[in-house]
Amino acid sequence: MKKVGVAILGLGVVGGGTYKILTDNKEFFKKTQGLDVTVETVLEKNVERAVSLGIDKNAVASSIEEVVSNPNVDIVVEVIGGIEPARTFVLKALMSGKTVVTSNKELFAKHWSELEEAAKKMNAGLFFEASCVGGVPIIRTLQDGMQANKILSIKGIINGTTNYILTKMANQGWSYEEALKEAQRLGYAEFNPTADVEGFDATYKLSILSSLAFHTKISVDSVHREGITAITKEDILYGKELGYTLKLLGIGKNTPAGIEVRVHPTFVSNSNPLASVNDSFNAVHLVGDAVGEIMLYGRGAGALPTGSAIVSDVIFAAKHTDYYYTCFKNTDDGVKETKFVSDFTSQYFIRLAVKDAPGVLSKIAGVFAKHNVSIKEVKQVAGIDGKVPVVIITHECPESAVNKALAKIEALETVYSIDSIIRLED
Amino acid sequence: MKKVGVAILGLGVVGGGTYKILTDNKEFFKKTQGLDVTVETVLEKNVERAVSLGIDKNAVASSIEEVVSNPNVDIVVEVIGGIEPARTFVLKALMSGKTVVTSNKELFAKHWSELEEAAKKMNAGLFFEASCVGGVPIIRTLQDGMQANKILSIKGIINGTTNYILTKMANQGWSYEEALKEAQRLGYAEFNPTADVEGFDATYKLSILSSLAFHTKISVDSVHREGITAITKEDILYGKELGYTLKLLGIGKNTPAGIEVRVHPTFVSNSNPLASVNDSFNAVHLVGDAVGEIMLYGRGAGALPTGSAIVSDVIFAAKHTDYYYTCFKNTDDGVKETKFVSDFTSQYFIRLAVKDAPGVLSKIAGVFAKHNVSIKEVKQVAGIDGKVPVVIITHECPESAVNKALAKIEALETVYSIDSIIRLED
Repeated sequence: MKKVGVAILGLGVVGGGTYKILTDNKEFFKKTQGLDVTVETVLEKNVERAVSLGIDKNAVASSIEEVVSNPNVDIVVEVIGGIEPARTFVLKALMSGKTVVTSNKELFAKHWSELEEAAKKMNAGLFFEASCVGGVPIIRTLQDGMQANKILSIKGIINGTTNYILTKMANQGWSYEEALKEAQRLGYAEFNPTADVEGFDATYKLSILSSLAFHTKISVDSVHREGITAITKEDILYGKELGYTLKLLGIGKNTPAGIEVRVHPTFVSNSNPLASVNDSFNAVHLVGDAVGEIMLYGRGAGALPTGSAIVSDVIFAAKHTDYYYTCFKNTDDGVKETKFVSDFTSQYFIRLAVKDAPGVLSKIAGVFAKHNVSIKEVKQVAGIDGKVPVVIITHECPESAVNKALAKIEALETVYSIDSIIRLED
Repeated sequence: MKKVGVAILGLGVVGGGTYKILTDNKEFFKKTQGLDVTVETVLEKNVERAVSLGIDKNAVASSIEEVVSNPNVDIVVEVIGGIEPARTFVLKALMSGKTVVTSNKELFAKHWSELEEAAKKMNAGLFFEASCVGGVPIIRTLQDGMQANKILSIKGIINGTTNYILTKMANQGWSYEEALKEAQRLGYAEFNPTADVEGFDATYKLSILSSLAFHTKISVDSVHREGITAITKEDILYGKELGYTLKLLGIGKNTPAGIEVRVHPTFVSNSNPLASVNDSFNAVHLVGDAVGEIMLYGRGAGALPTGSAIVSDVIFAAKHTDYYYTCFKNTDDGVKETKFVSDFTSQYFIRLAVKDAPGVLSKIAGVFAKHNVSIKEVKQVAGIDGKVPVVIITHECPESAVNKALAKIEALETVYSIDSIIRLED
């Protein structure tokens, strides 16, 4: 039976989950995969944490050099997160000819080319299923399940923390602050929640997923990013009344005009399968030119779901010796030529406060019409003190047209304020 | 650039879709996969059909021998369907050392071992993603995305024809016959719809999927099968009122008592993501011990979706020369030892017609209680002529207990008839 030696760098949540699966299912992998997988060593400063997981303290390495020089180690699992020291460790492992499996989305999104080059040079494997959408095999699907397709769009709920917060705001009527506090209490959100709530985490993932989907490197910087911190209960409530649910979406579109990549709060129609993806669940919806619509749904984070992706990569790497790399190898020119669209085409949900007076709506509609922004739906709600909240939903139009129209509308004497502009998908 | 020669056996719907993708996306595959894929030959009696697709008539082979002796053919795509001559053709291709990609669920479900043996012997590849759930990469997910997991259950809407019929019965109030007729008109159902509506097609797919999920060969014969022909509008209506949607599910469960595999109409709670999979869409819901819940959703049939799966297999086969086969190779003993459960544990939806008289429900409840069948919900509807329809939903219990209780209940003087017994999943 083929022996596979694994080293785990970092025994945090995901490292612990990975260790648990590899040890709990060791006999199962012998029987079902014909592989005898052993965790040979771990790199973790907190030796007590290692021992508490059942790891012999002699198996705790004291340096990355000790790990990569260990001849029993075939595969190095990096689950430290962040750029350094993860980047240095992964490069050392690859340059020693070890295959690397990582869950590190930030590292992968920012240093993919450097890592891939090292892997190719040394004929080492480089696997990163766990970097996006936890246990959902989205990378494998893009690489090995949908290669027949030109992928037209990818739309995903790819951050569990923000989905939990938005679900609670919608279903419990909580404010953003209340929902964030509960997410922190449950361990879904960090003490400093910036990476999640400002959309950085989703941006790293969208950079990776859209690079694979569109066969060209989409850098983190080319992704337009907006978080959920400015979202109010009122937006969610008005959206709900009109049949829309608010989600933080990562959206990638490959259009004749170029590629659009953006992370921002988005209303989705309740008939869209993404609308019913709740709490910390994630989902990715893809459209391919041959296969049409596909959606994958599951847990985007957590010790065992992310560990599942890591261990699936370990097994895949152990069974395939003819590594192949990403889709960029034949498209170096393509990367330089990639055109990006910044004037997004979308539908918009616009909330304004207007004067309770006759003719206000007709004046607003007139301004939109002049800018070729066509209106799909208008809803006016009973106001207080002569201030009336109005929600307008537009048909698809360029963002520049909406912004020009809104600048004119804001200047109208009968308009008090433009309170929100949120993109919308059917 | 690596050249890949493909032969297509059969130019029906899926064969035509496969040809279209391979030719339309030829330049795209050169650029993104580094593969120059060419359809070298086709085997199709109807030469005009081939020519109408744009195939040179000299490229139409006159026999399987001509195909398998063609040195330019690396991969043989079999999309004829049925057992013969598909089985003979596939075996000849494999024995000539050609890699085979097939969409043939019946052939694969019934002759898997024979095909796998031939492939192994000749070191040829054998790929069958297109045999189950069209363009949805469910086989790849089971083989390469969830291997870290002991899979506990698989539940799927894996037949588009019956899902279309049940969706129309639920949403339009049509009878089974009306919905079937419309499905036939649209080409979703065959003139002879037996394979779909009696659950044979779903049984083949569940046999393949549960074999992969549970790492042991699950023969077609071990799958309990019930179709949808006895389903009435009334069942669907009463279910709807109680918050359930009727689906034809393929269900596989791996329990300590053994494996359960069954295809039958099932009510699913509206909060279950399978409930909102409508029309001809398919979906598969999986639970793994590490990853938890996962669901894959997409088109289960059609020229391009199924063609997408075929072509993805072709590309995968062309890039991986270290073929691996299924999970059975280390579990030959396991196959013989597999225990099956026939006394299923489930919740039940039971519809009866009872006399409009006091004490009837209490008598029925008493019989259930005596057989340890616990009742979750009872709904009584206004009846006519003294006959009252009653719907009872049970908690989980063994089927044998329900059947024994119902035999007693049927004999009660106050019970006219037991009209339906339908299994139910939350």
